Amino acid sequence: MNKIYKAHILYTKDKAHFEVLENGYVAVGADGLVIGVAENLASLGADASQFCNKTPDVEVVDFGDKLLIPAMNDLHVHASQYRNQGIAMDLELMEWLQSYTFPEEMKYADTAYAERMYRRFVRDLWRVGTMRVCTFASIHTESTRLLMHLFQEAGIGALVGKVAMNRNCPEGLSEPVEKTVKGYESLIEETFHGTSLSPTPPYPPLVRTIITPRFIPSCTPEMLRACGELAAKYQLPVQSHLSENKDEIALVQELEGTWYGDAYNRYGLFGQTPTVMAHCVFTEGEEIELMKRNDVVAAHCPTSNLNVTTGIAPVRQFLDEGVRVGLGSDISGGHNLSIFQMMVYAIQLSKAYYQLHRERPYLTLSEAFWMATKSAGSFFGKVGSFEPGYEFDALVIDDSCLNHDHYSLLERLERYIYLGDDRQILHRFCRGKEIMETKILK
Amino acid sequence: MNKIYKAHILYTKDKAHFEVLENGYVAVGADGLVIGVAENLASLGADASQFCNKTPDVEVVDFGDKLLIPAMNDLHVHASQYRNQGIAMDLELMEWLQSYTFPEEMKYADTAYAERMYRRFVRDLWRVGTMRVCTFASIHTESTRLLMHLFQEAGIGALVGKVAMNRNCPEGLSEPVEKTVKGYESLIEETFHGTSLSPTPPYPPLVRTIITPRFIPSCTPEMLRACGELAAKYQLPVQSHLSENKDEIALVQELEGTWYGDAYNRYGLFGQTPTVMAHCVFTEGEEIELMKRNDVVAAHCPTSNLNVTTGIAPVRQFLDEGVRVGLGSDISGGHNLSIFQMMVYAIQLSKAYYQLHRERPYLTLSEAFWMATKSAGSFFGKVGSFEPGYEFDALVIDDSCLNHDHYSLLERLERYIYLGDDRQILHRFCRGKEIMETKILK
Repeated sequence: MNKIYKAHILYTKDKAHFEVLENGYVAVGADGLVIGVAENLASLGADASQFCNKTPDVEVVDFGDKLLIPAMNDLHVHASQYRNQGIAMDLELMEWLQSYTFPEEMKYADTAYAERMYRRFVRDLWRVGTMRVCTFASIHTESTRLLMHLFQEAGIGALVGKVAMNRNCPEGLSEPVEKTVKGYESLIEETFHGTSLSPTPPYPPLVRTIITPRFIPSCTPEMLRACGELAAKYQLPVQSHLSENKDEIALVQELEGTWYGDAYNRYGLFGQTPTVMAHCVFTEGEEIELMKRNDVVAAHCPTSNLNVTTGIAPVRQFLDEGVRVGLGSDISGGHNLSIFQMMVYAIQLSKAYYQLHRERPYLTLSEAFWMATKSAGSFFGKVGSFEPGYEFDALVIDDSCLNHDHYSLLERLERYIYLGDDRQILHRFCRGKEIMETKILK
Repeated sequence: MNKIYKAHILYTKDKAHFEVLENGYVAVGADGLVIGVAENLASLGADASQFCNKTPDVEVVDFGDKLLIPAMNDLHVHASQYRNQGIAMDLELMEWLQSYTFPEEMKYADTAYAERMYRRFVRDLWRVGTMRVCTFASIHTESTRLLMHLFQEAGIGALVGKVAMNRNCPEGLSEPVEKTVKGYESLIEETFHGTSLSPTPPYPPLVRTIITPRFIPSCTPEMLRACGELAAKYQLPVQSHLSENKDEIALVQELEGTWYGDAYNRYGLFGQTPTVMAHCVFTEGEEIELMKRNDVVAAHCPTSNLNVTTGIAPVRQFLDEGVRVGLGSDISGGHNLSIFQMMVYAIQLSKAYYQLHRERPYLTLSEAFWMATKSAGSFFGKVGSFEPGYEFDALVIDDSCLNHDHYSLLERLERYIYLGDDRQILHRFCRGKEIMETKILK
């Protein structure tokens, strides 16, 4: 059944400014795609009788004084580090990895443990309004499969990566290339995955496998080659880490005899299929050029940039030069799962960056919002906007507790982003369907 | 009546590490002061019969698996900018001041408006667990008086500053020196203020006036002199802003013919009575020396440092050199009222600072916690610790929703600081008394 939603509608068609529709309407088809968005019913091609529910084929919902905005997209997070969210945050990177991160990821050999943690992870993504996520799981095929099923059951869109790694890591997290390939192939065979080669009609499956070499230092050339071949053969997207810190960049140069992006590129892991790279803190010059040419998406993870003391990604430069950028929570390098808070931190870090380098202005609210919605959403399909043809991924925000003194609609949105939390999210939609707090999400 | 509280107790005697008492006890006298804290009743000088409520003079409360920690102290915030929290965050400083801050502060000439806003402000401080605050009000004496009464009624400790300013500001925010002096004197006469000259027994009034020249550029020499005289005459503490940005520092040099801290010092506004200075971003060399010599406290406001693009205060240096430091939310330059979140940002900014300058390690969790509790608390009396003789300012944290996988007590505290919010604060105590959600706090 078609639906018409009435509310104060805010979204970004482009990064420069918001579309603001006071008491606006958005019409959504039975297929979950936006039919139209307008300030009144007539412009929507609807009439009052439809809005009064007098026609049988339209259901109308009036959200009154609430805000209706696109849902959040998280382009980089480690599901298997969820237990470690918000602990050991003042440790140095190597101690953090060896004492916390790797031992934790090993536990996911146990699917019972994985299920307990992954349920919380999926539930909490739902809570904070993230309806699409691009996530690392662990090396373990069965736990990864379980995570995919949880997302499928919840109705949340996810690209889930079994992690490929076979060097520079503890024995329990190393997997031979052949086993990794077999693992991927068994995940690709999942029923909800069947149509991954034909992304019509009208969109690909909600939950899919994403090829996930951890990063170049933890994969042998054979593993990287196998990953590239899997991506090409099954037309699967790719995610990994890029140029996060200088030691890592030097190590890649030593291991692969070339610069970081080029190394991925040689293995078919840099835009040959849709690719997202996390961090890109020290990405510059020819690496930016190659990202642009290959349409590689940068996942900016501002809390991680701070917590892990990597430095600050040059996001303004990415935007100016036309590199696609989205935001990532990067749990557990990042500590906060909310993409709204990633917007706040992205603006704040751009100010810190501006202070250091002066030559570029810092990020505006509309730019941060656009990165979190339409720009990041583009990695999942036509997601993150209310323009016609977009999948209706949306949040209804009841900001009455923050809206005590006649703020404008944009001020209300800004206050929600800066001050709000999951308590104010009243409804969540993914691909047109309301995602309720079902058993899996409790 | 004396009380004994049982819970997992965490606090910091010094900045280097936490005191952690699993299933510990803290005894609090009828005067609101801590009698003792220990891992068992015997060490506390109590016995089981007391704990079983079998003696009439002790009431015992068992908080079970909850965390008991000192309450938060906010050393710098602008109550009259509360409406502007979380809006216009991507504006440049001058536009932000002229279009948002000054017009907002002018509204406080209207006590009805002030009451509406200040009630929300006091309520929200309560919510986030801040039991002591050092706040700017506005130039308006009656609104300032009203804010003092609200704190008094709520039972929350506050140093409330009527703002002195008479140059470089809009006409509606300028007040002649004589009127400012009269205003202060009328506030000092408030009944709850009567004992301000004799801080025994055993502690000063919970709510007091604090002398508050906005900052040097907005006060003529006559105003600064009058402020210094008021502080000396009535033995009142002082708060202001110091060395927040370079243009401001140059302007002070031009106006006063000396460096910033020295200018305050010449007017008796730099430690002659207890003094807290916000920001101190560019404080160095002789200014640090003078702060140390005069025991001037620095209020570090990390979100404000980021949002207002001032730069990052050298907090590690303050700690190493023995300058007292506390944390401030600095609403509305800062956007977040929670001092827990200020700890997170303080650690993160110290990491950004470390990246720039390398020579000093970044802040640890215990250092951030100590700054927010015992170090900041020292500005209000013996506040911020559970050592004997300290005023019992405390929060009881029910972190069960975050504590799903066998974390240590310190990890639980860290997770609460990084991930938690007001929902997990179950009880709040100020000076021994539980501060309930009364009418004023609704």
